[in-house]
Amino acid sequence: MFPPRTIFPALGGALRRILLVRKPGDPRTLRAAADMATWLRREHPDTQVLLELPATRMPPPPGVRTDADHAEPRPDGDAMRSLAQTCDMVSSAEVRELAKDIHLVVALGGDGTLLHVSSLFQGPVPPVASFSLGTLNFLPPFRIDEFPGVLNRAYDGAIRVSYRDRLVCHVVRDSPASLTSAATVREFVASRSKGGDGEPPVTAAQPLKLHVMNEVLVHRTPVPAMASIDCRVDGQLLTQAIADGLIIATPTGSTAYSLSAGGPLVHPEVPGILLTPICPRSLSFRPALFPQSSLISLQATSTGPRAPVSLDVSVDGELIGQVAPNDAVHIHGGGEPVPYISHVEGAGGADWVANINERLRWNQSFMEHGATSGATDPSSSW
Amino acid sequence: MFPPRTIFPALGGALRRILLVRKPGDPRTLRAAADMATWLRREHPDTQVLLELPATRMPPPPGVRTDADHAEPRPDGDAMRSLAQTCDMVSSAEVRELAKDIHLVVALGGDGTLLHVSSLFQGPVPPVASFSLGTLNFLPPFRIDEFPGVLNRAYDGAIRVSYRDRLVCHVVRDSPASLTSAATVREFVASRSKGGDGEPPVTAAQPLKLHVMNEVLVHRTPVPAMASIDCRVDGQLLTQAIADGLIIATPTGSTAYSLSAGGPLVHPEVPGILLTPICPRSLSFRPALFPQSSLISLQATSTGPRAPVSLDVSVDGELIGQVAPNDAVHIHGGGEPVPYISHVEGAGGADWVANINERLRWNQSFMEHGATSGATDPSSSW
Amino acid sequence: MFPPRTIFPALGGALRRILLVRKPGDPRTLRAAADMATWLRREHPDTQVLLELPATRMPPPPGVRTDADHAEPRPDGDAMRSLAQTCDMVSSAEVRELAKDIHLVVALGGDGTLLHVSSLFQGPVPPVASFSLGTLNFLPPFRIDEFPGVLNRAYDGAIRVSYRDRLVCHVVRDSPASLTSAATVREFVASRSKGGDGEPPVTAAQPLKLHVMNEVLVHRTPVPAMASIDCRVDGQLLTQAIADGLIIATPTGSTAYSLSAGGPLVHPEVPGILLTPICPRSLSFRPALFPQSSLISLQATSTGPRAPVSLDVSVDGELIGQVAPNDAVHIHGGGEPVPYISHVEGAGGADWVANINERLRWNQSFMEHGATSGATDPSSSW
Amino acid sequence: MFPPRTIFPALGGALRRILLVRKPGDPRTLRAAADMATWLRREHPDTQVLLELPATRMPPPPGVRTDADHAEPRPDGDAMRSLAQTCDMVSSAEVRELAKDIHLVVALGGDGTLLHVSSLFQGPVPPVASFSLGTLNFLPPFRIDEFPGVLNRAYDGAIRVSYRDRLVCHVVRDSPASLTSAATVREFVASRSKGGDGEPPVTAAQPLKLHVMNEVLVHRTPVPAMASIDCRVDGQLLTQAIADGLIIATPTGSTAYSLSAGGPLVHPEVPGILLTPICPRSLSFRPALFPQSSLISLQATSTGPRAPVSLDVSVDGELIGQVAPNDAVHIHGGGEPVPYISHVEGAGGADWVANINERLRWNQSFMEHGATSGATDPSSSW
Ligand SMILES: NC(=O)C1=CN([C@@H]2O[C@H](COP(=O)(O)OP(=O)(O)OC[C@H]3O[C@@H](n4cnc5c(N)ncnc54)[C@H](O)[C@@H]3O)[C@@H](O)[C@H]2O)C=CC1
Ligand SMILES: NC(=O)C1=CN([C@@H]2O[C@H](COP(=O)(O)OP(=O)(O)OC[C@H]3O[C@@H](n4cnc5c(N)ncnc54)[C@H](O)[C@@H]3O)[C@@H](O)[C@H]2O)C=CC1
Ligand SMILES: NC(=O)C1=CN([C@@H]2O[C@H](COP(=O)(O)OP(=O)(O)OC[C@H]3O[C@@H](n4cnc5c(N)ncnc54)[C@H](O)[C@@H]3O)[C@@H](O)[C@H]2O)C=CC1
Ligand SMILES: NC(=O)C1=CN([C@@H]2O[C@H](COP(=O)(O)OP(=O)(O)OC[C@H]3O[C@@H](n4cnc5c(N)ncnc54)[C@H](O)[C@@H]3O)[C@@H](O)[C@H]2O)C=CC1
Repeated sequence: MFPPRTIFPALGGALRRILLVRKPGDPRTLRAAADMATWLRREHPDTQVLLELPATRMPPPPGVRTDADHAEPRPDGDAMRSLAQTCDMVSSAEVRELAKDIHLVVALGGDGTLLHVSSLFQGPVPPVASFSLGTLNFLPPFRIDEFPGVLNRAYDGAIRVSYRDRLVCHVVRDSPASLTSAATVREFVASRSKGGDGEPPVTAAQPLKLHVMNEVLVHRTPVPAMASIDCRVDGQLLTQAIADGLIIATPTGSTAYSLSAGGPLVHPEVPGILLTPICPRSLSFRPALFPQSSLISLQATSTGPRAPVSLDVSVDGELIGQVAPNDAVHIHGGGEPVPYISHVEGAGGADWVANINERLRWNQSFMEHGATSGATDPSSSW
Repeated sequence: MFPPRTIFPALGGALRRILLVRKPGDPRTLRAAADMATWLRREHPDTQVLLELPATRMPPPPGVRTDADHAEPRPDGDAMRSLAQTCDMVSSAEVRELAKDIHLVVALGGDGTLLHVSSLFQGPVPPVASFSLGTLNFLPPFRIDEFPGVLNRAYDGAIRVSYRDRLVCHVVRDSPASLTSAATVREFVASRSKGGDGEPPVTAAQPLKLHVMNEVLVHRTPVPAMASIDCRVDGQLLTQAIADGLIIATPTGSTAYSLSAGGPLVHPEVPGILLTPICPRSLSFRPALFPQSSLISLQATSTGPRAPVSLDVSVDGELIGQVAPNDAVHIHGGGEPVPYISHVEGAGGADWVANINERLRWNQSFMEHGATSGATDPSSSW
Repeated sequence: MFPPRTIFPALGGALRRILLVRKPGDPRTLRAAADMATWLRREHPDTQVLLELPATRMPPPPGVRTDADHAEPRPDGDAMRSLAQTCDMVSSAEVRELAKDIHLVVALGGDGTLLHVSSLFQGPVPPVASFSLGTLNFLPPFRIDEFPGVLNRAYDGAIRVSYRDRLVCHVVRDSPASLTSAATVREFVASRSKGGDGEPPVTAAQPLKLHVMNEVLVHRTPVPAMASIDCRVDGQLLTQAIADGLIIATPTGSTAYSLSAGGPLVHPEVPGILLTPICPRSLSFRPALFPQSSLISLQATSTGPRAPVSLDVSVDGELIGQVAPNDAVHIHGGGEPVPYISHVEGAGGADWVANINERLRWNQSFMEHGATSGATDPSSSW
Repeated sequence: MFPPRTIFPALGGALRRILLVRKPGDPRTLRAAADMATWLRREHPDTQVLLELPATRMPPPPGVRTDADHAEPRPDGDAMRSLAQTCDMVSSAEVRELAKDIHLVVALGGDGTLLHVSSLFQGPVPPVASFSLGTLNFLPPFRIDEFPGVLNRAYDGAIRVSYRDRLVCHVVRDSPASLTSAATVREFVASRSKGGDGEPPVTAAQPLKLHVMNEVLVHRTPVPAMASIDCRVDGQLLTQAIADGLIIATPTGSTAYSLSAGGPLVHPEVPGILLTPICPRSLSFRPALFPQSSLISLQATSTGPRAPVSLDVSVDGELIGQVAPNDAVHIHGGGEPVPYISHVEGAGGADWVANINERLRWNQSFMEHGATSGATDPSSSW
């Protein structure tokens, strides 16, 4: 029922359309985009270069005081003029429409930029080349000055592609309570998801289907009263979570929000779905890992002492709406993965190990009796 | 500078005004209040009985879907008529004004009711008699049918009073950054708090001073982007917390929200202030306990890569407002404690031990090879 | 290099040799074994019934005071006489020799008995029928009075078999430091393990190869000085653990020792290897899950400030010896799994979910305002 | 019953006997001791300088393989000759006898040296001056080259002394089960402890009383079968711990073993006793803090399914013996504190905050999008 993931067509001569996605508000990503587009124009004139226009930022919600001292930098006029001549500017909506005809994505920025790239491709994802500008990225990035070599190798097809699995999340309004087997849940979700494929991440009355790179989060609203969430696996009640929230994460997401909530590190090649509670009102709630073949369903509890309340749903750090007790969030594996260009010498595993050691500072030892090491001899009394 | 806590005048003949506070929306607390008021009227006619009118409930925020199936129970007409004849109905605001002339509080309900009682008394608190109606209370309650004995003993002065410490929390707008010693912070807070004493828990521009029974919570707003909070102790930077939120809790509050966030159990007689992070973006953030004499200051970080954002502040489960980067939340010990009538035979400690074992199910062992116990003999091979 | 696991030949007419393994020291397992052997003799006279003789118990180590009050129960003479007539008594060593010709194992006891069964079969494992005698077992057991039906169905081949994966652990003396790639480590381990296959769990100078049902534990010796352990994945240094010990667990073992050390729950169908530290001397050591294809190597650190010391190695709760800094413990997936007869109606997953909920009391909520539930109406003020 | 702690007589002119304690096996501490003794001899010739002789190291237990490559450094002959002329060499036993007439202790080494100093003084402790030789110490140390100034100030009485509380631990053989109130336990412990004061830390049949700087540890023996420990507070059963072990720690010890076991950080000025389990066989065992006035009693469980076994008892990292089910370990506050000379400008609190931040790397944030900070403007789209 859930189709096998599409492995993106091998790169090679076919690199006719490249999408640049940059971290907004950072002049260096603007400069880098301009340089890269100019280079592409010159070296690979047959390639169309698309540049995603950042969405206009929301004004802050009323009542939220902002930092008055926060100065607005002047945009880099040169870079903008250069981009206007070398690229085609496209909105997020246009990117979503063109998705199947984009052959490579260049991400200029950090984790947030990669999550945004993921959100743009709700079907198959073209290979992503991730470049760091002082940022540190959960997908191992190249340095920006390496770009000519990296892109030339991509044109030659001489690159190594690794994958990150994504989950699929369905927010379904008025989900019947009668679905108690894996089969009926899957059938129902499939029936509702027709046409929902590739939906943009908006608060919608229609069923919503989204790919998940890091995690789905179901969380209490700001009034600090706990959420009560029924959690089902393959249609069977697993547990009722009374908590601030629940995280359903991919292995990639195990180093993101789930980690902060106390979850374990899960290597990206382990095919699992991670359930991590946020502030559970129980001493005995421990993170749990389920097989990637599981279908996990979350629903605000509709009976019992706690009045049922609506809950916030977020995917990959973006608030996508609220669910009422009759609605359900169904999550399962088998989403289209994100392919990314990795260093020829570094396997996916080595990258990940470096990331948890260097970036997350996993198992950093205390400052030890460092300097004494060479000189100490515990087997001698003097 | 912070005055020593006032121990409430001993009970005894002076029991001339009793306040009844009940859990709203629960017909049994209405019935119990009516019975108690009738009994008081008959047995102790010189005592004035006040009944706090529950505040009108807020309508749900727009966009929040509520459970349509949730039926409205019919209020108990008899009980209401009886109360109208035996009590003086008072609003929360009127209770706050009368606070110093109330000699005993009867709490009919659970933890939420006790927290509400605490919020009503921003100065000295009269002794609280807590009665359970099927609820379980963090202050050890009496059964409702025990009330005549308990109240008669209170009239006779033959009761045992235990205490729960409260912290004091100041929300101060435009807090100067130059306060870097314990003395200057305390002086500044005192100067700002003049007249703020006993302020109601509203979102206010003026400085706000509140007593804290469980905890102060500073938390990110619903958009799931992490908060960055500077945390100072006695004016010195302790740490910068990048997290969903920070909890500053009393020992009483150690079994509330802090516990859910992973904090330790702290016996109510330990004079400490507990700092527990919520979903810290760090592998090495561990709960920490500071002396009750510490002054802890929280402030949204105003510099650095993360844009400063406003944060939600809650006290004892009630959202009291937002703080912008220039504002500060200062918390210290020495608040007026909550005295409560306890069972003659049960010390505060025994109560607490029973509570963590029976209610929180602390250290519940797994289901063991139970039935085999008597019969197994590990020292024999047969 | 590591051969694919052998799925045990389908059951059916071929049930010619059954092994009974019982929990020693429990008269009820003796009684049950006698009843079952008598029944088998009568109903299936062509089947040879083996009964494993419990190994003689070690005397307590000198200096360890034992409980003088602990009475020795009289062995059940009737049951022993009956068994003498219906079974062939075999030692553990004899079971190991016969292993390939045993068609079914009946386990009478709890988790310890199942772990012992696992240790008896260092190659392919015949299906295990697990019977509870008041015990609770991590493999879902049948009630002892169900045995005729269960065994008859096994004879008819009408049973459902589920699997639990096992890891393989090699203790290798004088492991060269030059093995830094997955390939060289695997080659070296394979060369050393020749003939070590099926080794009994003894402290041995020769290389030792053992199947692992729950976990491998490397732990400091009783003097409470921390261990320092180099941990490699596929030949590359992952981390240096300064800790009381390290656990390398199967998903099955995730609910055993690893859980006590703070590890996550891992569903038995997730193909992963779990690394959980015990009392790490670091604030930032978090459990981590690696793909089942990983090869994990542990070695006492031989340089640095801490004097290298020998460490205790245990497999599935049995102390198997010590490793010095030059020795290494290599662990990888792909061991022969343990097949077990499960209830026709219960999938492996449902069994596991029941186990974590009912036995481990996962996510037990606090005692709530239980009785009030029906009566409370949070949307009304009265 | 437990006497109030003796505050050591103020320093000043009375500095007539100084004890040097050094980390054994470290040539630098030998050199430093020689320099300091020479200086003292010259500058303060009336002071007697004692140097504790390190106890002969135990040979490793049989069967424990040691690192053959571990070379023995040549002792520094010059330093030894110089010490022989300037100091009186004393054994640990002699230090214990002289304890009351020692006016200052100089600790040359790290945490282990400080714990050893604590163990030498089972009654009042003279002020300790802690000097670091590249080591990092939980009591904030001076640099070794600062010693003339520090010691001169000590002679002038111009120093600031801070305190660390110690617990007292009694190991009592054949503890009657009938002690169920705080009063009877305290009386019994006092009666047994007569004359036990100042006992050396040996495995003894007689009652043993020891001061505790970090923690008392009750732990399973090497065979990895869990311990079952009854834990009482003031004679009342608190819980039965099925675990690898239990830690009863001081606030000072909260950053030692307890931290590794998952315990919270407790500021040294909080008067509490911390209970932290090691690998509890329960999902719901959480560290707990009790008032310093509590009396905590630990005893191996003598009934129930698990055969009672002896347990290892360690104090401050030193194995002091085993307890059988009839024995009990009683722990309470009010031990003689350890006074130490601290920097004039650094309060005890500031020292501790520096220690948890710099040494334990508490709440270290992840590597962030560091370099981008200045340049990023989240409120702009370009
Ligand atoms: N308390 C917490 O830890 C929270 C974490 N988040 C995480 O942030 C993500 C959104 O990221 P941004 O848009 O950049 O929001 P953001 O600007 O709030 O950054 C969140 C942080 O998480 C890091 N991050 C994101 N994905 C990661 C991964 N897979 N592994 C390691 N670190 C990762 C980012 O680098 C950044 O430091 C969400 O998917 C969620 O996982 C969101 C809210 C709170
Ligand atoms: N994730 C969580 O654990 C959350 C906990 N809370 C806690 O709820 C409190 C407000 O309580 P309610 O108004 O009743 O809100 P509520 O109806 O949301 O109940 C919170 C739960 O906490 C319990 N509780 C409150 N104080 C406690 C204490 N001192 N010890 C043990 N349990 C306690 C209550 O009985 C109830 O089960 C807050 O002060 C906060 O501590 C609030 C939000 C989330
Ligand atoms: N602190 C702890 O939690 C310790 C746990 N163990 C565990 O005990 C196992 C040996 O078991 P026994 O011989 O029975 O020793 P045992 O008699 O010491 O029992 C250990 C406990 O672990 C349970 N257990 C064993 N395997 C389990 C599994 N896969 N899932 C859930 N619970 C399980 C047993 O039922 C028993 O309650 C070891 O493999 C190790 O996992 C061993 C020592 C300490
Ligand atoms: N897994 C663990 O964390 C273990 C910790 N220990 C601790 O070691 C102590 C004995 O210390 P050593 O004789 O030096 O043994 P050791 O040489 O085994 O060192 C133990 C480590 O704990 C540190 N340490 C000791 N006391 C400390 C404190 N109060 N705060 C912060 N760190 C502290 C030491 O600097 C050293 O890094 C014990 O009292 C116990 O607390 C002992 C065994 C295991």
